[in-house]
Amino acid sequence: MKTKLLAASALALFSLCSQANEGQWQPAQLAQLGQQLDAVGIRLDAQQLANPLDFPLNAVISMGYCSGAFVSPNGLILTNHHCGYGMIQHNSTAANNLIEKGFIAKAYAEELPGGPQERIYVTRAIDDVTQAVLAKVGQQTGKARFDAIEEASKALIKDCETDAFTRCQVRSFHGGLSYQRITQTMFKDVRLVYAPPEAIGKFGGDTDNFEWPRHTGDFSVLRVYVGPDGKPAEYSPDNKPYHSKHFLHINAQGVREGDGILLAGYPGSTSRYRLASEVNFAKNWTYPTQAADYRQTLAIINQQSQGHPEWAVAYASTVASFNNRMKKLEGLIDGFKQTDIAAIKAQKEAALPSKAHLEALESALKKAQPQWQRQWYQALSHQSALLDATIRLYRNALERQKPDADRKAGFQDRDQAMLKAGLERLQSRFVPPIDQAIWQAKLGHYLASDYRDPALDAVLPLANGKPALDALYQYTALLDAKARLALLDMNAAAFAKSQDPMVKLAVALTPQVIAAEDQEEALDGELSALRPAYMQDIIAYNEARGLPVYPDANSTLRVTFGTVAGYQPRDAVYYGPFTSVDGILQKEQDSGEFAVPEALKAAIKDRRFGQFERDTLSPKPAWYCTLLPCPAVKPFNSVPVAFLSSADTTGGNSGSPVMDGQGRLVGLNFDSTYESITKDWYFNPQITRAIHVDMRYVLWLLESVYPAPNLLDEMVIERE
Amino acid sequence: MKTKLLAASALALFSLCSQANEGQWQPAQLAQLGQQLDAVGIRLDAQQLANPLDFPLNAVISMGYCSGAFVSPNGLILTNHHCGYGMIQHNSTAANNLIEKGFIAKAYAEELPGGPQERIYVTRAIDDVTQAVLAKVGQQTGKARFDAIEEASKALIKDCETDAFTRCQVRSFHGGLSYQRITQTMFKDVRLVYAPPEAIGKFGGDTDNFEWPRHTGDFSVLRVYVGPDGKPAEYSPDNKPYHSKHFLHINAQGVREGDGILLAGYPGSTSRYRLASEVNFAKNWTYPTQAADYRQTLAIINQQSQGHPEWAVAYASTVASFNNRMKKLEGLIDGFKQTDIAAIKAQKEAALPSKAHLEALESALKKAQPQWQRQWYQALSHQSALLDATIRLYRNALERQKPDADRKAGFQDRDQAMLKAGLERLQSRFVPPIDQAIWQAKLGHYLASDYRDPALDAVLPLANGKPALDALYQYTALLDAKARLALLDMNAAAFAKSQDPMVKLAVALTPQVIAAEDQEEALDGELSALRPAYMQDIIAYNEARGLPVYPDANSTLRVTFGTVAGYQPRDAVYYGPFTSVDGILQKEQDSGEFAVPEALKAAIKDRRFGQFERDTLSPKPAWYCTLLPCPAVKPFNSVPVAFLSSADTTGGNSGSPVMDGQGRLVGLNFDSTYESITKDWYFNPQITRAIHVDMRYVLWLLESVYPAPNLLDEMVIERE
Repeated sequence: MKTKLLAASALALFSLCSQANEGQWQPAQLAQLGQQLDAVGIRLDAQQLANPLDFPLNAVISMGYCSGAFVSPNGLILTNHHCGYGMIQHNSTAANNLIEKGFIAKAYAEELPGGPQERIYVTRAIDDVTQAVLAKVGQQTGKARFDAIEEASKALIKDCETDAFTRCQVRSFHGGLSYQRITQTMFKDVRLVYAPPEAIGKFGGDTDNFEWPRHTGDFSVLRVYVGPDGKPAEYSPDNKPYHSKHFLHINAQGVREGDGILLAGYPGSTSRYRLASEVNFAKNWTYPTQAADYRQTLAIINQQSQGHPEWAVAYASTVASFNNRMKKLEGLIDGFKQTDIAAIKAQKEAALPSKAHLEALESALKKAQPQWQRQWYQALSHQSALLDATIRLYRNALERQKPDADRKAGFQDRDQAMLKAGLERLQSRFVPPIDQAIWQAKLGHYLASDYRDPALDAVLPLANGKPALDALYQYTALLDAKARLALLDMNAAAFAKSQDPMVKLAVALTPQVIAAEDQEEALDGELSALRPAYMQDIIAYNEARGLPVYPDANSTLRVTFGTVAGYQPRDAVYYGPFTSVDGILQKEQDSGEFAVPEALKAAIKDRRFGQFERDTLSPKPAWYCTLLPCPAVKPFNSVPVAFLSSADTTGGNSGSPVMDGQGRLVGLNFDSTYESITKDWYFNPQITRAIHVDMRYVLWLLESVYPAPNLLDEMVIERE
Repeated sequence: MKTKLLAASALALFSLCSQANEGQWQPAQLAQLGQQLDAVGIRLDAQQLANPLDFPLNAVISMGYCSGAFVSPNGLILTNHHCGYGMIQHNSTAANNLIEKGFIAKAYAEELPGGPQERIYVTRAIDDVTQAVLAKVGQQTGKARFDAIEEASKALIKDCETDAFTRCQVRSFHGGLSYQRITQTMFKDVRLVYAPPEAIGKFGGDTDNFEWPRHTGDFSVLRVYVGPDGKPAEYSPDNKPYHSKHFLHINAQGVREGDGILLAGYPGSTSRYRLASEVNFAKNWTYPTQAADYRQTLAIINQQSQGHPEWAVAYASTVASFNNRMKKLEGLIDGFKQTDIAAIKAQKEAALPSKAHLEALESALKKAQPQWQRQWYQALSHQSALLDATIRLYRNALERQKPDADRKAGFQDRDQAMLKAGLERLQSRFVPPIDQAIWQAKLGHYLASDYRDPALDAVLPLANGKPALDALYQYTALLDAKARLALLDMNAAAFAKSQDPMVKLAVALTPQVIAAEDQEEALDGELSALRPAYMQDIIAYNEARGLPVYPDANSTLRVTFGTVAGYQPRDAVYYGPFTSVDGILQKEQDSGEFAVPEALKAAIKDRRFGQFERDTLSPKPAWYCTLLPCPAVKPFNSVPVAFLSSADTTGGNSGSPVMDGQGRLVGLNFDSTYESITKDWYFNPQITRAIHVDMRYVLWLLESVYPAPNLLDEMVIERE
């Protein structure tokens, strides 16, 4: 039997191990991928899958920064806890801390408004607008090309946003080879329905961020409300639950190791088709430089906050976000050390039959890179949160002198609410001495760099060539939040006449900032002509070999598929694809990120698992035992908490529904493993894994730990 | 096929998974274990294995604190790097640092004397002396019993140690159920032949201590020399290599996952037959109390050493040893948290048919435990390294008033050299202000405890009930090393008359110390009557079920066997049983514990693996692939560095030869995994694993990285 199996395995290895799970596919591309979908066990019709307006893709929603899915006909949405966090925070007070306690609405009337900023977007149309954009662009290059693209995009958006609940975007694909206009319905009345306590929804906290094995119950439940007429509306107590035409059923049996899964959502950005030289630039300059910058900024915040606990609070979310970025940078730097991604890229480049476009792009990049370095150092010279806000306000005043259609993107009427929100956010996250100390350090780096510009030096606050920032903070009126907000309505002439030292500096610096932006746009414009030509070569080369090419992620709806699979993170270590609730108790600590709520602990200790206990999620132990003395792999006998798949995801895919072969919900995507962090550059199928919360854990919590029978009744749960 | 295999697996699981690898067997016991040895694939004759004077056991040596094996007919010995460390250090100077560089002797003449303290012991006879001991003991109990056992042992040793190169011990088994006298030949001329650089032999340092995956090349090569007459001798340049009658051949093919292995050596001490109540006492009192004590001592050393780098150097080995013990304590505390070992013991106790002896032991322990607690706190009151040495010297003077045979063990003529060596070692590891600060803290704990004794308080250096240690350190002459050494020859009367404050305190405290010792010996004596009775019940119960019982480890020669096997350390993580040289580069750092020597790095990068590269050490990946989509387990294609087995080891087994089913050397034992630390109490076959350096790594280093062709020629290496 042994010999037969080994012989069979040679074939199986060849056909199965070459299964590519790479690919963040545009819905329409799925129509060509029927065979691959079938091979991993996706039984949905590829043609149907390719239609974003049909089931299951029209059950997938965007929150702008996250994804999610409808799971009932009444607008009920499942997404991550960290995606619903803003809404939980919005409804929390010291006396009634929903972050800590969690929240369960037992009826519609108990569901809580998510706050004025929250939005749910559902894609309504995807139109190819390549002709419309490129017709305006013609043979232009550089800054003119950039401006032409922007102008064409703004016009297409304006035509599309015909009412207050329609939001449109124009996105480029393959670096400008094609353009699509995405039309979305925007829902503004979003309510909080259910959240587990933070000790479940964020179990493991920053320590476990990007880590596997993971035991985070990263889910929350929201609901979309509409006006009495069934149409999107501003929040009103009279609104009623939205009738979602399609929604996902839930497979309470879940998936097993090796099963195929399908994942849909709105991934933000990847760089999969960048050149070897771009990888090297990131590896050797961008990432180490950014890491040093973050490290210094974190050290300054920490040092300045000593003895000022309230300052530490103000910068807590900044520090959390910087720590998150630092861990990502460390993962990138480690990953580049473990795998020579530049060499892999170089090999692919060498295989291309025609090199002319590659070389043209390469030579443009060689010129662009020192320019980016110069811009980095020059930008450091004025990186203060306060100054940055002031410059943005002055630019807004300048742009508002023009008709809306002519304004720079980001300063149009449609952007004013967001500008104001940003300004309001600044207030709770800003301490003048810390802001000044950070700026002082960064300005020092500029002054010590090879990229000094006399014109810039002339307007910077220097004394004897050294930073002189004290007076600015001492005499500006802008330390006051109201004074800053007032600038939103001040016209450009008033800015120019202001005697406030921070405003004067902003006015003086703005031409420099605009010039730098113009340069960058000129570079973008140039690359936007060269990259599509190179991408066309790649697409032609791959299509000749029968391989479709997916575009880099760009925050549009994408579909990826893969299998439930563990991986080998390092020598002699294998990670299995499922964690269990027993692992929660293994990690338990008395307090902090690994504290376990009593209700959860009791349910685990009493093994009240009901139907959600699974004997063995992987057939491996049994098979393995027939051939070898007893392996140390124990049967599962527990409730699965999280699982891994080889699906191709990135930031923005948080909350994405993970579906089984029949399109039934089995998990919610919420993170990637540490070893996967370089996947934005290169998808290494051996180690790239996405982390999903298992719907069996979600259902078990809703059934046995923090019960919400009303929600279980509302969802369609297929239990056998 | 799937169904058939699953059915087969049920049987296989049952028979193979119940394979016990627990057991540190006395050689003679192996005669009964033929079937079990056969089941794991040991093809050596059980009768031959049972004879410690025949191959392969007579190739196994002891270093006192470590084990090893002869690997050539010319007295060549393989043991761990950390076991040969003292010899490497002895031959190192700042200018010629063999620790850092490693060492290769290309001929006998280049082999370096190991130093005056080094010994190699080979067991020559094992005699049962139970009758002789128990005849003296009779029905005595308590202190009288303890003394009778000590007296009988000393007499048996004296009869045996007929020349300067014979060393004898009397050891109790099963807590005093039987006694054996071990006669060993002691070799005093031990030389250093080969050591890899510390960056290989101690790769990973303290960070990787107790950890898996491990990449430490923990081996060194020694040689035993004898006089021109072939007999053991003191060191002399005229000595010649010893002719070792038996030695181990080396299997250059190594072992694979699932293969059976045999391991022999001198394990120090285990507590496998302790009661549930003893586990709870250790878990709830002993370990947390010790951990708090170590933690405080480490903090004091660290704090006092600030600004005194030379003090930090003096305490470096103390700190290293305390850190090691701290990690072990943490492992014990974590392990007790993960597995309820007391409950397992309680279950076994409940299964015993007769409980009378168990209850008698239990009740004696219930009285002993508070006494041990009192002794711990009272001992804290005088825990200064300086005072401790002084008390020991005074006791030595007191004992030397008696005939040698009547003296306390540890103070006989045979012990004087070791006393002196201890005193000399103190000199380089002692800084008065640190010693005082540690004592001050410990004395404080005694004073705050519930175990104050007015008689002890009366002699302690207190002022107003608080520690008053300054004068002691200020006025004692014993801060000087020579003054301390002089005390070795001072008689008891001179001690009693001394005006040195430290000596006066030692003289005053010694009666207290002796009284405490007497109490402890009385307890030991009592338990030495009760524990054998309980052990007899256990043995009878097990033998009725056909299960032989091995005695707890007691530094005598033991044999254990098991299989090469990985394990599951925690939820969703599986550790494979082999590490590879590629893993060394994954861990590489520019400097420190994970720095990789250039020669090693180059050999790995160039993949100069010769015959030592192995395709796949485990059949798992191939099998696995036939049944599931591509797993992430990669083929091995590298040189194995270390491997895991389920053999039953403990401290003292360092350097133990790991043999394949034919008794050929395949590895050297050097550590256990973190999850195994509780094995001294309970052998959990699912997680207990010993860590061995793979002989293929050793051979590869000797062949291709730091070549020693002379040694490869000398050993018998079976290459195919």
